[in-house]
Amino acid sequence: MRIRIFDTTLRDGEQTPGVSLSPEQKLQIARMLDELGVDAIEAGFPVISEGESKAVKMIATAGLSADICGLARADKRDIDAAADAGLDYVHLFIATSDIHLKHKLMMDREEAVRRAISSIEYAKSRGMKVEFSAEDATRTERGFLRDFFKQVAEAGADRADIPDTVGYSTPAYMAEITRDAVEATGLPVSVHCHNDFGLAVANTISGLQAGATCAHVTINGIGERAGNASLEELVMALQCLQFDEARSTGIHTEKLYGTSRAVSGLVGIQVQPNKAIVGENAFGHESGIHTHGVLSNPLTYEPISPELVGHTRRLEVGKHAGLHGMNAMLGEYGVKPTAEQSKVILSRVKALGDQGKKVTDVELLSIAGEVIGEPGLRRMVQLSGFSVSTGIGTMPYAFVKLNVDGKEFSATDYGVGPVDASLSAMQKITGEIAEVRIREYGLASISGGSNALCEVTIGVEDAKGNKASARSVGEDIVTTSVQAVIDGMNRIMLKKMLGGKKTRG
Amino acid sequence: MRIRIFDTTLRDGEQTPGVSLSPEQKLQIARMLDELGVDAIEAGFPVISEGESKAVKMIATAGLSADICGLARADKRDIDAAADAGLDYVHLFIATSDIHLKHKLMMDREEAVRRAISSIEYAKSRGMKVEFSAEDATRTERGFLRDFFKQVAEAGADRADIPDTVGYSTPAYMAEITRDAVEATGLPVSVHCHNDFGLAVANTISGLQAGATCAHVTINGIGERAGNASLEELVMALQCLQFDEARSTGIHTEKLYGTSRAVSGLVGIQVQPNKAIVGENAFGHESGIHTHGVLSNPLTYEPISPELVGHTRRLEVGKHAGLHGMNAMLGEYGVKPTAEQSKVILSRVKALGDQGKKVTDVELLSIAGEVIGEPGLRRMVQLSGFSVSTGIGTMPYAFVKLNVDGKEFSATDYGVGPVDASLSAMQKITGEIAEVRIREYGLASISGGSNALCEVTIGVEDAKGNKASARSVGEDIVTTSVQAVIDGMNRIMLKKMLGGKKTRG
Repeated sequence: MRIRIFDTTLRDGEQTPGVSLSPEQKLQIARMLDELGVDAIEAGFPVISEGESKAVKMIATAGLSADICGLARADKRDIDAAADAGLDYVHLFIATSDIHLKHKLMMDREEAVRRAISSIEYAKSRGMKVEFSAEDATRTERGFLRDFFKQVAEAGADRADIPDTVGYSTPAYMAEITRDAVEATGLPVSVHCHNDFGLAVANTISGLQAGATCAHVTINGIGERAGNASLEELVMALQCLQFDEARSTGIHTEKLYGTSRAVSGLVGIQVQPNKAIVGENAFGHESGIHTHGVLSNPLTYEPISPELVGHTRRLEVGKHAGLHGMNAMLGEYGVKPTAEQSKVILSRVKALGDQGKKVTDVELLSIAGEVIGEPGLRRMVQLSGFSVSTGIGTMPYAFVKLNVDGKEFSATDYGVGPVDASLSAMQKITGEIAEVRIREYGLASISGGSNALCEVTIGVEDAKGNKASARSVGEDIVTTSVQAVIDGMNRIMLKKMLGGKKTRG
Repeated sequence: MRIRIFDTTLRDGEQTPGVSLSPEQKLQIARMLDELGVDAIEAGFPVISEGESKAVKMIATAGLSADICGLARADKRDIDAAADAGLDYVHLFIATSDIHLKHKLMMDREEAVRRAISSIEYAKSRGMKVEFSAEDATRTERGFLRDFFKQVAEAGADRADIPDTVGYSTPAYMAEITRDAVEATGLPVSVHCHNDFGLAVANTISGLQAGATCAHVTINGIGERAGNASLEELVMALQCLQFDEARSTGIHTEKLYGTSRAVSGLVGIQVQPNKAIVGENAFGHESGIHTHGVLSNPLTYEPISPELVGHTRRLEVGKHAGLHGMNAMLGEYGVKPTAEQSKVILSRVKALGDQGKKVTDVELLSIAGEVIGEPGLRRMVQLSGFSVSTGIGTMPYAFVKLNVDGKEFSATDYGVGPVDASLSAMQKITGEIAEVRIREYGLASISGGSNALCEVTIGVEDAKGNKASARSVGEDIVTTSVQAVIDGMNRIMLKKMLGGKKTRG
């Protein structure tokens, strides 16, 4: 069965506290969602502001393949705003649970039914298709909910939606009320699940198994509080796992990782490394047992191939490392230690791990170089001098001195920030030796307080598309960043020098 | 029914790529888990390194209430390492799926059974209780898995565990094989679920409903790839949702948020804002409808009270804001605009939101001050001059000039990094006027490249425990950080000046 994917990243997702998008940014995300292959896009909530109304109009008239929808309360003013924004498809809602009726709407059930009916009739009179949500459906008295949906269908709604507004449902209960809604309405039914207890995807699947044909989802599962069911998790679960019957979507799965990253950047909400499907570690392996397995056959420790979702596999070494994984990593740089040398290298790697230290490729190669007695396996580029200044009323400017393969080079430059200035200065030097540019720059603080440890992750790339990444941890954000760049440069130069065949992001 | 919580943060969680903990850090986390009330702690995998063995021994002898367990392959050397680390409880495993047997272990099913039996006998001979896992159980042929578990029980194992090693199971299938394992072994059965498709918590609950009595979980759901079932989600779902029967745990739920934060800091793996239960936004509200509802009765838009998990509620304003929420926020500072003034303030807030800008308390108060004509509602502290330098071979040092309530003050100081130096200098000035200290400092990069936008979140506190937080976004990490601190200071001073009753983190 073909499941309809209704994406609400631009409505539920944008309601995430602290997220605000300009109309142009909203259109940019709508285009990405359309290319991803979603069936419907909830573009926004037109009544809330002028900019929102403008954004919805821009998206509605952009010629996208997906159906474009907007949210409206069961209220004439909201419906007019949706119609005036150029929509021919509106997502109407009114709360039906007693707690919402009593404490928020201050009305009784009969009044809610009357408003629902009159809003549907009005929206239809303005020429719009109507998807109707009984807000807080999962905490609504079950008999009333069934009856409410029946009247919504009779009033002319085209679709019914079951929102689990506070993520309170269990999969079993979602199945029960979905069956009720399908029977009571005879309409296509959607489920809209929130993730307050980590059950949004499971509840969505349960609703689909019980007869719903459409899932409301967001990219990266963003939304108010713990967010909504995550598009990427739902789509991949339906495609890859063995349920009672086969369910497919129109999503181009190989675009999932790229879309996730782009949305995360635009909304400013980070995706945790251990997020399913799209997290940075979703296809990362460190332990010796897992790495060994993945090297023999990736399916031993990966349920699906990372390419299927546009992601990449990543192997790391550390105290859980085994000989197979470590030798595979060294092999990428063409380094082949003997069995005896491998053991010595591994014991040094584990000793570093026991101190709580991460071991990067450059460290690993440097240890291997010492053990094998190959001095070429050292850092080609070393930072021998560095100074940077910034402030208010001045451009940040930096001085760097680099030792590249034994020779000293100095340069100065300015930039938009102290890190940018330092990197510009370094690139003046390394441009002559290796065209390395920064393609990614990530920051995280590990501990609290102004003397917090910060972690910098940096991705560099040379003119031929060779890529390398490096991480560095320290107290001084600027110096730590510069050290990460130096590590990244060393990795790319080592790869080239040693004629490594593969590149690993 | 009382469910046993088996925490594997220190084993599965530490296998997260890039995570390495020192023995002291592992002991620190073990103590927190014990205080949280977990029933069992998997302290590590003793055979992998000297440090790991030392860590396990430290935890095993620390006098904790929880049972302490360690991981071992079905191998004499691994079992000896566990016994030598002082454990009397070992978690043994061998893979049982054909893909693991063929591509990783290169052995047949009979050999796997033989090794399982002999390892159990050996572990028992070394005086240890045994929990036995059939690795990759969910991709193992079902008849063989049942038979395998039967022989494991006959060989003397004390507990059986069903790992969904690559997160491949559906809730329905997890229920089926759990029933099989319970029947075949007559032992207490655990489930160990991975989150590759976002179903780890649902699969765990399904296993418990089918007769398992123990759940393997990690704090924040960390672990290899997409991680494991998250302790906090599982525990709160069992406690708060309506399943077929009541299931309880021994977890002190009010410690969940604090434990989550502490573990995140120690392992260096960030928790995404929209993470269920413990994410920063898990109890955050921005939209007018939600804020209005929460102000009338928090249960309208929160499934549980944040205090139950040691978290706090947070309201924000932005383009989705409504009059109720905005006036409530102003009311916290004792500011009471007229109905007409409220409308004007709200329209300005929405205009900022439409430009993609976040609106902080200070902005809101400043807008309100202009509209009401109350000049006191302005920034008390303004940064009028600022310069900082750092580099290699020098301590970072800073100069700041602050305008505090119309008077100019200057100071210099040094610190471990440029931000720390700047903050120290500022604190020299503000210490005289307001004892404000930085208690939290968070960094994130929003976009890529060395000229990335970075976001700084800062939490400040005064001597009386008044707290405020602020965010700032900019290209220069140091200047942006300093601006966030100034915002935080202003918020705390405004709160005190206006006699606000509540404080909001």
